[in-house]
Amino acid sequence: MINVIVDAMGGDNAPDAIIDGCIEALQKQDDFMVTLVGISEIIKEKLSKKVYDKDRIEIVNATEIITGEDTPTKAIRNKKDSSMVVGLKLLKEKKGDAFLSAGNTGALMTGSLLVAGRMKGIDRPSMPALVPTEKGMCLIIDAGMNTVCKPLNYLQFGIMGSIYMKLLFKLDTPKVGLVNVGSEDGKGNDTLKQAFGLMSESTVNFVGNIEGNDITSGDVDVAVCDGYVGNVALKLYEGVGSFFLKELKKIFTSNILTKICYLLLKPFFKDFRDRFDPDELAGAPVLGINGLVIKSHGSSKAKTIRTAILKRTIPLIKNGIVDEIKDQFKNMEVKPSEDDID
Amino acid sequence: MINVIVDAMGGDNAPDAIIDGCIEALQKQDDFMVTLVGISEIIKEKLSKKVYDKDRIEIVNATEIITGEDTPTKAIRNKKDSSMVVGLKLLKEKKGDAFLSAGNTGALMTGSLLVAGRMKGIDRPSMPALVPTEKGMCLIIDAGMNTVCKPLNYLQFGIMGSIYMKLLFKLDTPKVGLVNVGSEDGKGNDTLKQAFGLMSESTVNFVGNIEGNDITSGDVDVAVCDGYVGNVALKLYEGVGSFFLKELKKIFTSNILTKICYLLLKPFFKDFRDRFDPDELAGAPVLGINGLVIKSHGSSKAKTIRTAILKRTIPLIKNGIVDEIKDQFKNMEVKPSEDDID
Repeated sequence: MINVIVDAMGGDNAPDAIIDGCIEALQKQDDFMVTLVGISEIIKEKLSKKVYDKDRIEIVNATEIITGEDTPTKAIRNKKDSSMVVGLKLLKEKKGDAFLSAGNTGALMTGSLLVAGRMKGIDRPSMPALVPTEKGMCLIIDAGMNTVCKPLNYLQFGIMGSIYMKLLFKLDTPKVGLVNVGSEDGKGNDTLKQAFGLMSESTVNFVGNIEGNDITSGDVDVAVCDGYVGNVALKLYEGVGSFFLKELKKIFTSNILTKICYLLLKPFFKDFRDRFDPDELAGAPVLGINGLVIKSHGSSKAKTIRTAILKRTIPLIKNGIVDEIKDQFKNMEVKPSEDDID
Repeated sequence: MINVIVDAMGGDNAPDAIIDGCIEALQKQDDFMVTLVGISEIIKEKLSKKVYDKDRIEIVNATEIITGEDTPTKAIRNKKDSSMVVGLKLLKEKKGDAFLSAGNTGALMTGSLLVAGRMKGIDRPSMPALVPTEKGMCLIIDAGMNTVCKPLNYLQFGIMGSIYMKLLFKLDTPKVGLVNVGSEDGKGNDTLKQAFGLMSESTVNFVGNIEGNDITSGDVDVAVCDGYVGNVALKLYEGVGSFFLKELKKIFTSNILTKICYLLLKPFFKDFRDRFDPDELAGAPVLGINGLVIKSHGSSKAKTIRTAILKRTIPLIKNGIVDEIKDQFKNMEVKPSEDDID
C-alpha cells in the first residue's frame, strides 16, 4: 500500500492541522496509509480523540522540531532527531513513497539534498511553484531554491518542469518558456543566451523567451527562471492579488447599494476565488532528488494538507515521477555544483 | 524658458499622438516650450492643421527614424540623423532641458549612454519603473536596463531611486528595500549579501531585504533589484492586472443582473482604474546620465505624452534631478563597467 510519510510537527498549525488533514485524506480515499513522524506522545494524545482507521496510520517517534526560525543547514545538521530529518531518512530508506512537510522551507530544501540526496545527472534540484493563469496553471521553476544558475540548470529545470506538468495535468508536450527581459531571440545576459541555446537543442517543447506577463497569459505551461526571479515573481503575484482583492473589498463595502451588488455577484466570484485558493495550490515538490519530497505552505490548514496528499502527493507517486525524472537524466553527465542552498 | 526636446517620430502612434500631446501640454501650462525633432516636412504639415502658440514650438529636422525592430546599438551607431540621436545630441549640447521619447526602449537606453554619456561616479545608469501600491507608488529600480549587476550597482540604484522619489513625490526620506528571496538579513546569493552590506552602511533609508509582495504593500518607496528581476516583476504585475480585469469582466457580463451591478458599481471603480492607468504612470527616466532623458511607453497616446511632459519631465527639470544626482555621486570613485546594454 502507498505510504505517505508526513512531518507531523512542521508548519504554523502543527500538529493539529497536519493530523486532521491526514485523517480527512484517509477518509476520502482508501488506497494509501500515512506515517506520522514527530513527538509520538503528542501525536498519540491527539489521535486518541479522533475517529480513524488505526491500520492506516503509523507513528514514528522524533523528539526534536525544526522551527521557522532555524537556520536551514544548521538545523538539518544539528537536529538529527527532528521530525523533518527522521522523515527524510525514512524516505531515503524507502520506508515510504513520499515525504510531506509544511515545515521550514529552507531546511526542507537543504534536507532533501543532504539526507535524500541529489539524483544522478542532476546538477541542481529545484522547487517549483504553480500559479493560476488565464487558461489554467503555469509552473514557475525555480521558485527560490537556486538564486544563481548556470545555463545547464535552466535546461534541467525545463526538463523536470515538463515531466511534472505532464504527469500532474496529463499534458502531452507541455510548452516551456525561458523567462527573459524580452520575448525576442537573443535577449538577456550571457547566461540566459546560453540557456536559450541549450533549451533550443533539447527535447523539451521550447517556445523561446517569454516575459513576465506570459506567465499569467497561460501560453506556456512551464516558465523557467532562476530562483531569485522565480521567488520574486511568485511573491509579487500574491502581492498583486492581495492588493486587488483589498481594493475590490473597499468598492463593495462603499455603501448599502454596493453591498447588495456584492451579495448578488458573490456566486459568480466562486470560480474565481477557487482558482486562487492557496489551499488548492498547495504542495510543491523538490524535483531532482532521490525520492518524492512535497512542501506544503507554512500556514497549511487541515484542508491544505488533505489537498497536498490527495491532489499532489498520491497522483505523483502513482505516476512514478521520481523514476520518470531518473530515466531522463540517467545518461546526462554533469559535474554537480556545490550543495549550497541560498 | 524650459525647453523640452521631444522625439516626434518615436512610438507606435507617432508623429500624430506625439504632436497632439505636446500641443495639449503647451495649452495646459505656459512656462515651457517644446522642440520637436523629426522629419520637418511631416511635422510642419501636421502642425499646419493645429492651433498652437507658434513661439513655443521649434522644429529640428532629422531625416531618419529608429523603429521598434531596430537593434539598439546598431540603430544608434548607424542612424546618426534619426530623431532619437539628433534629440539626444541637442540634450548633450544643452540646447534643451530634457529629451522625451516614446521610441525603441533599448535604443533610447543605449543612446543615453553613447550620446548623452554616463555621469561621473555612476557605474551603471538605470531605468526604473513606477508601480501602484496599497499606499501610493513604488519605484522598481532597475527595471530592465542592467540584467547583471554588481553589489555597487544595487547601492547606486538605491541612491538614484531615493532622489527620484524624493523629488517626484516630495518624500523626505524614501524607504529603500532590497528585493530578495526572503526578508531576513543574510538572505540571497553573494551579490545580494554584499549589496545588503553596502546599502546598510550607506546614507539611503535602507529598510533591509524585502520580498515580491512588499512591492505592492506600499511599505517601501524604492525596490532595488537587478534589471532581470525588475523587468519580470513589472511585466508580471501588468499580466496579473490584466488577468484579474478579464476575470472581473467575465463576472460582470454573466447576465443582466450582473450587468446592472456593474453599472451601479462603475463610479466606485474610477479611482481604482485611475491608479492603474498606464497613461498616468507614463514617463520613466534614464537615471545616471548627463541630462534628463524620459521614456514614454511605445503605445503612448496624446494624453500619455501630455502626462509625461507635465507630470514627469517638467517637475523633474524644475527639481533639478540631474544636478542632485551629480552632486551625490561627484565624490564616488568608480571604475565604470563596460557600456554593454542587455
